Amino acid sequence: MQFDLTKEYLDQIKVEINASNSQFIDREIIHLHPADIAEILDELTRDEAKFIYDHLDHDLQGDVLMELEDDVRQRFVESFNTKQLAQQLENLDSDDAVDILGEMQVDKQLEVISEMDSDNASELVDLLNYDENTAGGLMQTEFIRAKLDWPINRCVIELRRQAEEVDKVHTIYVVDNSDNLVGTLSLRSLLVANAKALVKDVYTNKNMAYVYTNEDSEEVARVMDKYDLVSVPVLNLQKKLVGRITIDDIVDVIREEADKDFQMASGISENVEANAGIIKMSRARLPWLLIGLLGGVLGSQVIGNFETQIGAIPSLAFFIPLVAAMGGNVGVQSSAIVVQSIANGTSQFSSILSRVKKEAILGLLNGLICGTLIFAITWLLQDIRLGISVSIALFIVIFFAAIFGTLIPLILHRYKIDPAVATGPFITTLNDVVGLFIYFAVGMMVFGL
Amino acid sequence: MQFDLTKEYLDQIKVEINASNSQFIDREIIHLHPADIAEILDELTRDEAKFIYDHLDHDLQGDVLMELEDDVRQRFVESFNTKQLAQQLENLDSDDAVDILGEMQVDKQLEVISEMDSDNASELVDLLNYDENTAGGLMQTEFIRAKLDWPINRCVIELRRQAEEVDKVHTIYVVDNSDNLVGTLSLRSLLVANAKALVKDVYTNKNMAYVYTNEDSEEVARVMDKYDLVSVPVLNLQKKLVGRITIDDIVDVIREEADKDFQMASGISENVEANAGIIKMSRARLPWLLIGLLGGVLGSQVIGNFETQIGAIPSLAFFIPLVAAMGGNVGVQSSAIVVQSIANGTSQFSSILSRVKKEAILGLLNGLICGTLIFAITWLLQDIRLGISVSIALFIVIFFAAIFGTLIPLILHRYKIDPAVATGPFITTLNDVVGLFIYFAVGMMVFGL
Repeated sequence: MQFDLTKEYLDQIKVEINASNSQFIDREIIHLHPADIAEILDELTRDEAKFIYDHLDHDLQGDVLMELEDDVRQRFVESFNTKQLAQQLENLDSDDAVDILGEMQVDKQLEVISEMDSDNASELVDLLNYDENTAGGLMQTEFIRAKLDWPINRCVIELRRQAEEVDKVHTIYVVDNSDNLVGTLSLRSLLVANAKALVKDVYTNKNMAYVYTNEDSEEVARVMDKYDLVSVPVLNLQKKLVGRITIDDIVDVIREEADKDFQMASGISENVEANAGIIKMSRARLPWLLIGLLGGVLGSQVIGNFETQIGAIPSLAFFIPLVAAMGGNVGVQSSAIVVQSIANGTSQFSSILSRVKKEAILGLLNGLICGTLIFAITWLLQDIRLGISVSIALFIVIFFAAIFGTLIPLILHRYKIDPAVATGPFITTLNDVVGLFIYFAVGMMVFGL
Repeated sequence: MQFDLTKEYLDQIKVEINASNSQFIDREIIHLHPADIAEILDELTRDEAKFIYDHLDHDLQGDVLMELEDDVRQRFVESFNTKQLAQQLENLDSDDAVDILGEMQVDKQLEVISEMDSDNASELVDLLNYDENTAGGLMQTEFIRAKLDWPINRCVIELRRQAEEVDKVHTIYVVDNSDNLVGTLSLRSLLVANAKALVKDVYTNKNMAYVYTNEDSEEVARVMDKYDLVSVPVLNLQKKLVGRITIDDIVDVIREEADKDFQMASGISENVEANAGIIKMSRARLPWLLIGLLGGVLGSQVIGNFETQIGAIPSLAFFIPLVAAMGGNVGVQSSAIVVQSIANGTSQFSSILSRVKKEAILGLLNGLICGTLIFAITWLLQDIRLGISVSIALFIVIFFAAIFGTLIPLILHRYKIDPAVATGPFITTLNDVVGLFIYFAVGMMVFGL
């Protein structure tokens, strides 16, 4: 790509802004892609960013606004008065306008809406009713529809008329007289069609994909991904066509999902940005830490049962962290694969038994490798009896951790609990407790305590 | 969506196949979307799947083949003889054909290519040279180009002529006489243009996005995401237009990246599918386990230094797993946020110092909460001196773990080491060793040993 925001260029921009050089903005900035302008604004102070923003025309302002990072956009929005904000929202696609409205207090929403012209306002009020994580919350109401008995060139006229309002048209939706979706018409088939043809002669009604307003955004992503769509029509519960969702919004959904899953796997239970407040960040991390604390306390109770043995042979304590950590690691590895294949819906009918069998074999193999290694190391560093205890215990712990790691997410899933959320804490706690018990039990036998 | 593959329907399909009821296939299956047919084949045995596949026409076979799960497709491909395979590949888009060829042995590749007609063959041979994780490896050579001085209706003729070959056209690429990309022409602007206009009158050359063949697939995803593109043109290093990449392939790249990151966060170092072989799965998991083993051995050395103290006060050993686990948890939480914001390129110029300061405050806060809790619990369960030792140690460990967790990925990133790969093992090992040392040092002071 051609645009690359370097530190030097950014410094130059700051200098020009502070010299109030609006010629520079006109010459260098306003010709850039809105996403590139937004990238610059993200790195400036609010006043610097405002200086550039105020030089853009209204359409470009709307495009740039939606490309800003969330917290930068929020600061921008807060700096507008009600009238300015209403005007800004009218420049936006309906789905974007609703996203911004949705982040405001209800009384502020009402103020802004009352400043908008009534057509726009009533559309936004409708859209505000949808949960933001559903198809209704993602859709925009700007799309082009055609009736079955229209001549082809009426579609072209419609396209020209709505050119201002509807960005990125790939498909025209064909409806019957009661606004029910009956098929689609690609721009390409419009182009190659005979000028005198009717819509009903050239449209497609085969394998038509659509979603309902109340469907989850992840389900929308799944449908668009599965059928390789660049846009999908949205129907209300009476099957009337009410909007469309474009792939760029779905790419955002997929990325957010992935970020959330990654954070979940790292023990952060609410989706937080790197720039969230301290309290919010603390709250997102505490659940996992408290469960870890509980696991540690339970572990201490298990070890407490072996106090006299530790008093007699303190070196037994040396390998406590190793046994606990390895059980956790193996459990998390096994569960990650299961959680992922549940999330991706892979092989939905493949039997649970065959998966557990595979993980068990894997546990035996990895347990054997790790057990053998730790036997050699412990023998060299300490003594052979400790080596025997640690290696046998580790082998058993890895084997059980692999089986628990596979079964727990499968069981959670069967009882409709999201395995991505609950698997980690369960496995950590279970493996701590069971692993330590196995370790000391084996140690007692080997040392004849 | 309308299609939902139930267990009952699948059973019915199996019954009909085993009764060799080809009428059923013609009536029920062949009208489905290729992705839905593939979903059915994924769940059948190879012979059952073959029965359906052989009933499809060639175009549909190609579409279904690309929608199959990887391992199912591989089994299909292996069941074809060279001639059949060559024919199947000719039905596919060039990017898909190359993906399948790329998975075969070189001698098998040559055999298949020698059976194809020479135009197709030379195109595929060119594409095979690109690394599959680059723009060149993702692109297809089917696209529609127009010259600057063409009249508009020549584009329409071209569209009609290539309708068979080029799926999913959204944009026509405009080139000069030496095949250099100079701009784009959307189908919509074609539709609304005057029939007598020339391409150069209506095309756009502003903010044109493109990628080079050698750019990484993640970079392609970043560009398409940033500029909200449904397809992007690919240039070779002489800036000639050689292909295009469509968004559906990029959605796959984003999903694969996310899966890889999730597995990485769970300690699995190679991207493996749930149905990979045992040896491959074991190899993907061992690196993490061996590092865990090393961390455990180092931990045992630290504890070994305090053997006499443990002999005197065995209850000190009770909270070893708690201290080790909490250090690891906090470190992973802190690093996850940093790794993620590095990966997303958020706030690239924001200072390292401010991030470390924030994590330090967060560490103090969470350390205080967890430390207070564990003090109360330990006092109740054991005694006040153990409570003081554990809580002070835990507070310090959480504080340092938060700082290490932030600094390590930042340092790795500065030295061009992928923080997503290396952060986990580093943090686990460091926190085990440092955490245990802090714990016993505090314990010695409190107990006056």
